[in-house]
Parts: sequence; structure tokens; C-alpha cells
Amino acid sequence: MKEEKPQKKLEELGKDLVQQIDKGKNPTIEFSLRSLSNVVYDKKDQILRLGEKVQERSFFNVGHAKKFLQTLEVAKVSKTLLDVGKHASLRDVFYMVKRTIPGSSANIVDEQVESDKAIEDLELITDLFREKLHINANKMGSVAGNVTIEDTGDTINWSKLGSGGWSIPSNVESIKFRSVKAKYVIYMEKQAVWERLHEDKFWDKHNCIIVTSQGQTTRGIRRLLERLTSEHKLPIYVLADFDPWGFYIYSVLKFGSISLAHMADSLAIPEAKFLGITADDVESYDLRKHFIKLKEVDYSRLKQMADYDWFRNSKHWQRQFKLMKDFGSKLEIQALSSKGITFISDKYLPEKIKKADFLD
Amino acid sequence: MKEEKPQKKLEELGKDLVQQIDKGKNPTIEFSLRSLSNVVYDKKDQILRLGEKVQERSFFNVGHAKKFLQTLEVAKVSKTLLDVGKHASLRDVFYMVKRTIPGSSANIVDEQVESDKAIEDLELITDLFREKLHINANKMGSVAGNVTIEDTGDTINWSKLGSGGWSIPSNVESIKFRSVKAKYVIYMEKQAVWERLHEDKFWDKHNCIIVTSQGQTTRGIRRLLERLTSEHKLPIYVLADFDPWGFYIYSVLKFGSISLAHMADSLAIPEAKFLGITADDVESYDLRKHFIKLKEVDYSRLKQMADYDWFRNSKHWQRQFKLMKDFGSKLEIQALSSKGITFISDKYLPEKIKKADFLD
Repeated sequence: MKEEKPQKKLEELGKDLVQQIDKGKNPTIEFSLRSLSNVVYDKKDQILRLGEKVQERSFFNVGHAKKFLQTLEVAKVSKTLLDVGKHASLRDVFYMVKRTIPGSSANIVDEQVESDKAIEDLELITDLFREKLHINANKMGSVAGNVTIEDTGDTINWSKLGSGGWSIPSNVESIKFRSVKAKYVIYMEKQAVWERLHEDKFWDKHNCIIVTSQGQTTRGIRRLLERLTSEHKLPIYVLADFDPWGFYIYSVLKFGSISLAHMADSLAIPEAKFLGITADDVESYDLRKHFIKLKEVDYSRLKQMADYDWFRNSKHWQRQFKLMKDFGSKLEIQALSSKGITFISDKYLPEKIKKADFLD
Repeated sequence: MKEEKPQKKLEELGKDLVQQIDKGKNPTIEFSLRSLSNVVYDKKDQILRLGEKVQERSFFNVGHAKKFLQTLEVAKVSKTLLDVGKHASLRDVFYMVKRTIPGSSANIVDEQVESDKAIEDLELITDLFREKLHINANKMGSVAGNVTIEDTGDTINWSKLGSGGWSIPSNVESIKFRSVKAKYVIYMEKQAVWERLHEDKFWDKHNCIIVTSQGQTTRGIRRLLERLTSEHKLPIYVLADFDPWGFYIYSVLKFGSISLAHMADSLAIPEAKFLGITADDVESYDLRKHFIKLKEVDYSRLKQMADYDWFRNSKHWQRQFKLMKDFGSKLEIQALSSKGITFISDKYLPEKIKKADFLD
């Protein structure tokens, strides 16, 4: 992804269309086909990305006209946002483009899914992800560690923010890292586990950065992790429950997903490793007592995951899936609390990290 | 709620039971009955609180023995947490007390709901809310404004934290407010709206504090708002969608709820006012175009709410409920974005606040 000025990209898009019109052509935009049939697993780079198929979107085409208009409308909103130096959420953009087409009773969009898709198309057309186009996804999560950043004129030291930490914004593109003194990043799905590690000053004792969302990883967090690993060469260790959903969080973070395939290079993190909880941890730390029975939905998720291209040929992942099935059970990170309040900080994590006991 | 040392309270509980045993009595704890039949709406203070009924819990009583044990077990965990100066989440505490009773095959607790209830009982018995007992609920939300606090040895200025803001911890009891330069607090349910106001530096221009969670208000945020209003006399304005759920967020924040009735004085915020979106805003700001049809579940929620003791005799709230029903529609805050990127910051909020156009 080049660092061209987003405005320029959008202006080029507009100028190109004007030129086509001046030449008496049917205004047409061409970009990669975004559909399941064009999503491929790139074995070399270990990420899900779009294949070579392209699609065209023309104004004088009954099947395209509305989508063509939607695409240009979100481009216009993005251009305005960039011009005035403001950002908007996906929901905001929906309301901004939801206006009636003059001389008709039709709205440009009726549902947010339409503007969302138009924005994803615009990402592809401009080769700029939506955050660069000043359109934000959800805000979620917290971070702490020996890192100093600059953001909107403020200098922020992630090690001096009390028990709360820094609240991760939806858009981390304009953050500047001033000082990053850490050896690795632990990313965890649960805020409560983050609070445990933070209270124990784990990041200080072990010279790392701790990041949490709550449940699925937001794009803001994904981009933050991606920047920490690509710009500062930090390994990313994922700490999640021993269940199909914990594995899935890791899978999306590392390999990407179908819906992210068009932005794989900026969002997937091939460097991520799964720290735990693993089937082997269950034995090593004597945690069977805290098993929770798998439900039907867990079994089917597990089967889906085992069939993924990137897991299918991985012996160690297939072994994990099989062991979970054999156990008939899943296990939460917080089961470690049964071993002692600070067991996770004092024993579990230091041991696992020292032995480099990760799944890749 | 007195500021007695939590350890002392727990020790007193233990000593009292030992004395009962020494006297050959059946060890018994007495505390307010926590059940729907004992939740009353206190008209004078405008909060939901527990009535005068009490319950006893005895060791030598087949129906009580397990709950008695659970109560003492969470008291022990809390005492340990306090002694070592650590905190734990509700889920952690569940795993800590989930052990097998020696000489039996029974666990002290099998489901988290059991330890959660024991913790709520302990809150009542000790007259200390769980955060003071070092047991935390969920962490969620962000804050910005001209406020400086001290927390776990750090001095944190909420006006210097870039685009992210301060991440609100699950437990705000030990925060010290060093400087609070603000006239009021706006609490909003949506992070995206918070990011809008934050980017527009609304809190700086209007000298206020902006707080968000995502969806329902966590106890950490509730306590933060309660402390800002009780210790610093700041009015709390609630900014939520014009829908039954937006109203409900306000209702719980201001009047409390059945499950919070035992801690009403520290958690309910009678000073809170509803800023918007109101039925009148729909007309004043010409927002009908963005109506979303009410569903069956919305209608029934609306009816429930209209029947609440605290809304039943309120003419202006009954009018809001009726108008929503007449509209057959709800409306999101973000519909204001259709009027312009910064419409909410430049026009909507300043106008409403200047006119003190709130629902109480």
C-alpha cells in the first residue's frame, strides 16, 4: 500500500470518469471481483487474498447504475471528510449518503449494508483502506506497555495511564510511534485477563505490550497490531480461550478472512502466534476439572476450521482440533485463576514464553 | 456507604460467626431479602431500593447450607484479594471458589451464577459494593475532558490522550480526582458518537466531560458518573437513541434496577437527565426521513417502561412513549449526521444544552 495522498486518489477517480464522459464513453470503473469465487489462500504469504478476476461497474447499465451511484456518493463523502480533516463512522456515512435521488422517490441507499459495500469497493478502487479514507469502524479495547506515541498533538505514554490504559481509537493510521521499548505483544480477547496482567505489571516485568479487545478484533486493533509488527518487528502472541472461537480469533488475525481479503496486506498478520490455551496446557497445568462441555455449534465450528486451507495441512493444528473433540470440552483462560490469583502472570505466561511454546 | 476498611468488615463477619459457634448456636447470617417482593421504588429519593424484609442464612439448615458455604467462600476470596492488594473479575472468583468440598464429590459452586449471587449477598452483608471487595465487573468505555486524576501512582490528564482517550477500568474506587474543570458530563451509549464529539473537541469548546460505554452501562462507568456527580456536583446528561433501549439505559442509570436495588445509593444517579434524542427533536431537526420501524419487541418494551413506577406518573415521559408509538418508529442519534458531519457538535448539542431542553 503506497502512501499517496488519499485526496489525490479520489480526484484521479473523478477525473478518469470525466475523461470517459468527454470521449462519449459509458463511464466505467474496473476493480478486483469481490466474491467468494475470487478469494484464494496465498500459501506463500500465508494470507487470504483476492484472485485475478476483475469486475466492471458502468453507469449506463440497468444492473450497475445504482451501485455506480453509491460508489461515487461514498467517494464524495470521503473526499469531503478528507478536505475538512474529519472522520466518520460507517453508520454516519450511511446517513450521509441516504438521500433521495433528485427527481425520483428512490434513495441512494436504504440499508447500511449498501453503503458498507460501496465503501469496501472504494477501498479496492483506490487501494486505500477505509481508515485512510477517513471512515472508521468500531472503537474498542485497551493497551499498556513501554511505548510512547504521538496522536492528534498529544504525547501519550502507554506506561503511565493508571489502571485503565489507553483506549484504542477506531482509527490508528495517524499515530506516530516515538519510542517502542518492548520485545513482544500479547493480544488477548478478554478485558478481564488484560486487567489481571495489567494489575500484575506484567508488561513492565517482562518488557512487552498488552492489548485487548472484547471478543472479535476490531479493525483499529488489527491495524495497531499490524503496525507494531511491521514497523517495529514485534512478535504478536495471541491469548484466547481453548475453544473454537478462540482459535477463530487467531485464525482471522493471522490469515485474514473472506470479508477482509481485499485488504489482506494491511490487515492480516502472518507473524501472529497462538500462545494458549492449548490442549497441552490442559495436561501441563492440570485443568481438566474446569472443562466446559462442547455444544453442537462448537463441534460444527471445529469441523469448519479443520477444513480451512491454512489448517488442513498443519499437523499440530489438526492435533489440537482432534484433542478438543476427544475431550468433548473447551476451557477458558480464566480457569488458570483456580491455580492462584496471579498464576497466569507469575507462572503460566513466563513458562510458555520462555519455552517459546506457541502454535504457528 | 461508610468508608470502613473492607478487611475489617470481613473480619467482623468471621468473628461474629465464631462467637455464635462458641455459644453453641447455629451459625446464622442475617441480611436484607434480595427478591422482587422486597424491591420498592423510593419516591422521595427517586431510586429503586430494597424494602424492610430480611432473610436469614444458617449453616445447619438443609436448604441453606450450600449457600452459607458459598457466601463464606467468596468472603474468603475477597479477604485474600484485599490482603494481597489484588483484584479479580467475577469469572475469576467463580474459578477460585469452584473447588470440591473435601470428603465429598460436590463442588462449592458449579455455575458462575452461584458465585455471582454469593458476591451480591456479601455486598449486602458487608454494606460494601463488590468493587470495594476487590471484585470487578466488566471493563468498557472511554472518557475525555479537562480532568486530571491519580490512579495506581500515575497522574493522568484526560485532555491529553490523543484520539483514544482514557480507557475506563472496571473499578474506579481508588481513583483520586486532582482537578475537575468541567460544567457537566455527557454520557452516550455509542463509541462512534463519542469519537465524533472528541474529534470536534466538543469537551474543550464547551468545558465538559464526555463518557461512553458501548450499549449497557458497566458498573465501572456507573460508579465513575456517580462519583463525578456526587463529589463534583456535575450534572449528567444522557445521549442515547430515540428507542425503548435508549430510554432504558437512562432509566437504569437514573433510577437503578431490580438487580442493583441492594446497592442503589452508590449506583443510581437521580441527577441524570435525558438530553436526547427525543420525539420533539424529530420535529425540530426534521429527522422523520430517518425513522426506523418499531418491531414487536420494541412495542412490548415500550409498554413495560410506561408502566414503571417512576415513569407512570410522569406526563412528559408518557408523552414521549405515546409519540414513539404514534410514530411507529424509532430514530438513531447518528441520523443527525445526515445534517452534516459536525451537526451534532456545532448545532444540536449546543442548542439543546443552552435551552436546558432535557427530560427529567
